[in-house]
Amino acid sequence: MSTLADVAARAGVSKSTASRALNGSGYVSAETHARVTRAAQELGFVAHPGAASLATGRTQTVAVILPRADRWYFAELLDGVQEELLTGGLDLMLYNGADGSEGRARMLDHAISRRRFDGVIAVGIEPEAHEIERLLKARRPIVTIGPHSEGASSIMLDDRLTAHVATEHLIDLGHTDIAFLGGPADPQRAGFGDALRIRGYLDAMAEAGLEDAARIVPAESSVPGGYAAAGDLLGNKRTRPTGLLAVCDETAVGAMIAARRMAISIPGELSVVGIDDHQYAEMFGLTTMRQHPREQGRTAVRLLQERMQNPDAPLARRVEASALVVRNSTAPRG
Amino acid sequence: MSTLADVAARAGVSKSTASRALNGSGYVSAETHARVTRAAQELGFVAHPGAASLATGRTQTVAVILPRADRWYFAELLDGVQEELLTGGLDLMLYNGADGSEGRARMLDHAISRRRFDGVIAVGIEPEAHEIERLLKARRPIVTIGPHSEGASSIMLDDRLTAHVATEHLIDLGHTDIAFLGGPADPQRAGFGDALRIRGYLDAMAEAGLEDAARIVPAESSVPGGYAAAGDLLGNKRTRPTGLLAVCDETAVGAMIAARRMAISIPGELSVVGIDDHQYAEMFGLTTMRQHPREQGRTAVRLLQERMQNPDAPLARRVEASALVVRNSTAPRG
Repeated sequence: MSTLADVAARAGVSKSTASRALNGSGYVSAETHARVTRAAQELGFVAHPGAASLATGRTQTVAVILPRADRWYFAELLDGVQEELLTGGLDLMLYNGADGSEGRARMLDHAISRRRFDGVIAVGIEPEAHEIERLLKARRPIVTIGPHSEGASSIMLDDRLTAHVATEHLIDLGHTDIAFLGGPADPQRAGFGDALRIRGYLDAMAEAGLEDAARIVPAESSVPGGYAAAGDLLGNKRTRPTGLLAVCDETAVGAMIAARRMAISIPGELSVVGIDDHQYAEMFGLTTMRQHPREQGRTAVRLLQERMQNPDAPLARRVEASALVVRNSTAPRG
Repeated sequence: MSTLADVAARAGVSKSTASRALNGSGYVSAETHARVTRAAQELGFVAHPGAASLATGRTQTVAVILPRADRWYFAELLDGVQEELLTGGLDLMLYNGADGSEGRARMLDHAISRRRFDGVIAVGIEPEAHEIERLLKARRPIVTIGPHSEGASSIMLDDRLTAHVATEHLIDLGHTDIAFLGGPADPQRAGFGDALRIRGYLDAMAEAGLEDAARIVPAESSVPGGYAAAGDLLGNKRTRPTGLLAVCDETAVGAMIAARRMAISIPGELSVVGIDDHQYAEMFGLTTMRQHPREQGRTAVRLLQERMQNPDAPLARRVEASALVVRNSTAPRG
């Protein structure tokens, strides 16, 4: 049975470097990491996975809590988190469950009771659910992506400003009848980010003296959701808006498909703006507010690593900007 | 500091039941699991995460290797795996990296050298990359979803038959000029599943005496990919096929959007069939071959658990059927 010293010798590095590479603690270059892990494999070196954890008190694992993987935003984010964790030699423990579901509550209980991670990245946590308060009981540093919570670092898109800029773009083009497409049937129950987007839309409308024209049309954040909701909204030519801000690009694309089916010209009769710069946005010529979920995921890992290395490091609170990307779905009011 | 006995007493269960619930080994009802984890939380019970692993030699963790999360098929599958693991009290360690990338090779090295899992679910592994052979060195049971490999259990869609049935559907409707949309520029380099779909298409064409009409048009497995490839294929009215089998629904939907832009009537001038029954298929009225990735994910976990409990259990090899779902994108040749 080979030892750590054998692995270090074969890889041509010190024992401490070999240990760092195999445990993923401290800095090791990608090249060294590859050489050491290869040497370990070739020698059949077996470090008991639990042993390093007991010795260091570290699991070299980060828990990622995600509401779902089947949306562009979350999938991109997850890819960014994975890439950055891999760079740091850290494993990713996934806890993937829909908000408010029974499975999700159970998943969190499970995660908290096991605490098999050195830190947590929690995505799209709703403050009312008190999930962060519960997670803090596990006494691990936490970074949230989305709403800020006491005791955790956070990264969020400036949702209010994003929707504000998008609405202003439509107003600048001369539109006065602009609807917001997204959120639940009762806007009071909108999630944190959606509520801020609605707020930004309403503020921009009010600043332009258009508060009476503001209307919020509930729609799911998906292509079929946007399609269904836009079908109702656009069906009546008399009450149809000339501008539409969708809560996300998937909803916007659904609305564009519905409009085409109804032979409503975009942007001739209807201007549409989304939020995301989804992979489909370019194909649909969709004007949108670009955000970078993959980069948000990478940043979350870096913020978490700071606090994993130094638990007394101050909490960070990052607010990310988005940028207007003008394509062919918006034009001056006809 | 509270002990396991305190937790068991508070939850009103035996120590062994409390231990099973906290370690996720053996059967515990969902209700008991919730009660025990709640009691542990309330008492601030701290079982060292590495200790249970050292004692039992088990990590209660399953590694999931996935090429990417941002496709409907993989996201659905991941959700199914997560749900079933949670039911069994097992954690999910995610290794998410694109085929053939440097990051992927490094990720596998990392996973194998640490072996912090009791079993592996490997999705969309390409046999030529010898990834399963490398994973087998970690001496953990493996279930593949996709190509079968020696030494691993497997679940796969009957890709050949699926494409065969889809092509026959078009042939039955009187189409003779049917193209296959999908796969890389060099069909010889198609991935395992895509190659079998191409095979099924070619076989069905040959059986109907249409081998000379068969043509394979490369396209990425995504909506933008289908859109771009169909743009070229459908542009020339003289050489345009009347039937189209797409490698997956996302490609099919991209082709449908391209056809609409070119004012080509579906199904009047062009019949389109996909494979998946993606969440967008119904909205687009897409005729498709339905498969159930979420259920495939659940089945993979169950097959893996059998071998985690009994390493001598025989390897399983499951081939899943798909079903033709006829909607409005296919019609008799006009």
